[in-house]
Amino acid sequence: MLELFIGDKNYSTWSMRPWLVLQHFAIPFKEHLIPFDHFELDSQFKHSILKINPTGKVPVLVDDGFLIWDTLAICEYLAEKFPDKDLWPEGVQQRARARSMCAEMHSSFMALRSLCGMNIDADLTNIGAKLWQDNLKLQQDVQRIEQLWSERPSTDSFLCGDQFSIVDAFYAPVVMRFVGYGIPISSFSQQYVQKILAVPAVQQWIQEAKAEFRFVECEEPYRTE
Amino acid sequence: MLELFIGDKNYSTWSMRPWLVLQHFAIPFKEHLIPFDHFELDSQFKHSILKINPTGKVPVLVDDGFLIWDTLAICEYLAEKFPDKDLWPEGVQQRARARSMCAEMHSSFMALRSLCGMNIDADLTNIGAKLWQDNLKLQQDVQRIEQLWSERPSTDSFLCGDQFSIVDAFYAPVVMRFVGYGIPISSFSQQYVQKILAVPAVQQWIQEAKAEFRFVECEEPYRTE
Repeated sequence: MLELFIGDKNYSTWSMRPWLVLQHFAIPFKEHLIPFDHFELDSQFKHSILKINPTGKVPVLVDDGFLIWDTLAICEYLAEKFPDKDLWPEGVQQRARARSMCAEMHSSFMALRSLCGMNIDADLTNIGAKLWQDNLKLQQDVQRIEQLWSERPSTDSFLCGDQFSIVDAFYAPVVMRFVGYGIPISSFSQQYVQKILAVPAVQQWIQEAKAEFRFVECEEPYRTE
Repeated sequence: MLELFIGDKNYSTWSMRPWLVLQHFAIPFKEHLIPFDHFELDSQFKHSILKINPTGKVPVLVDDGFLIWDTLAICEYLAEKFPDKDLWPEGVQQRARARSMCAEMHSSFMALRSLCGMNIDADLTNIGAKLWQDNLKLQQDVQRIEQLWSERPSTDSFLCGDQFSIVDAFYAPVVMRFVGYGIPISSFSQQYVQKILAVPAVQQWIQEAKAEFRFVECEEPYRTE
């Protein structure tokens, strides 16, 4: 029995990724949502998650008591466990591209990730316009992402092929940020944004995020600045 | 033909990882070393690497013109290309553990990575003693790494099995840091350190690092503080 521990759907980008993979590929799993309050050691969140995962982070996948504690490792584990579902793209080269892109997401884009925290429920276009104007590093992150997206096989394809795969799940939270903060992107990128927004699993995540109605102060630093 | 572009062996932890995998598993490849000077856009290093890799980073693997631009993606690519060499550990669970640990290395341990830059050629035990005393976050990083290492199958095994695998290559630069900075670790961890230092590919990397005799100022901030 697969169990996925996640944070708030409105805020938690790393939770969104493996959840989308499980949901899109119709892999049965049980979801456990541990709400964020804050991330200090005395938070309710840390209190709950540290009982399950020594790193104190979400997401974590538990398969009959066995722990996999990182998003990319979870996705590789699922790809091995369900080889017929083609969680990675077809073809050695597209798989290598997909993995390079996932790893780059994993370790880069710090300006985008720190300045534009995901907040699906909010319209942050005013804040986004100001952030965009003030931050060269944010512009550079977006430029690099648009470069990666521009190399997809065709206008109408997903990032590394005709089918939605793990790499698209990795970039779905970026799509949510581009939309929420009104980041100015090319029409070619915009087409990819629309393609992701039309994926049923993405739509379900958005719907459930919007139904949370929870305000977590530390996730919205721009409210108090 | 596989070509691996790397930085200085004395300093470049990310270069060390895929190089060890290629070398240890006797996979033929051509090495291209691009020496570090600094990492601003006008550096000689960036000038050279940007011609090959748009992220401007090493390592990068080029396989007959096809680019794989991240360490973890390079290792997964090699594991797919050479399935008989067992680059990942045996067994689904040990593989999942290995991948979780690699991903954690990829995205965590920021105090260790920023304070204790790898410098194979230098004895930094005095600097290490001071850093250790002054930095709780460094101590926490080391504690977590020791926890991970303590869960290896046996005293005498590698991290996820009897054989050296990708996950050991990922933690080899940590071994070099622990040695160079004289980080105080348990005898159980110390046994793992000795095991890694005895791997021929690791010995070769160390030897070649020590033969470089290059001082890169931005890699040794503790010299000027």
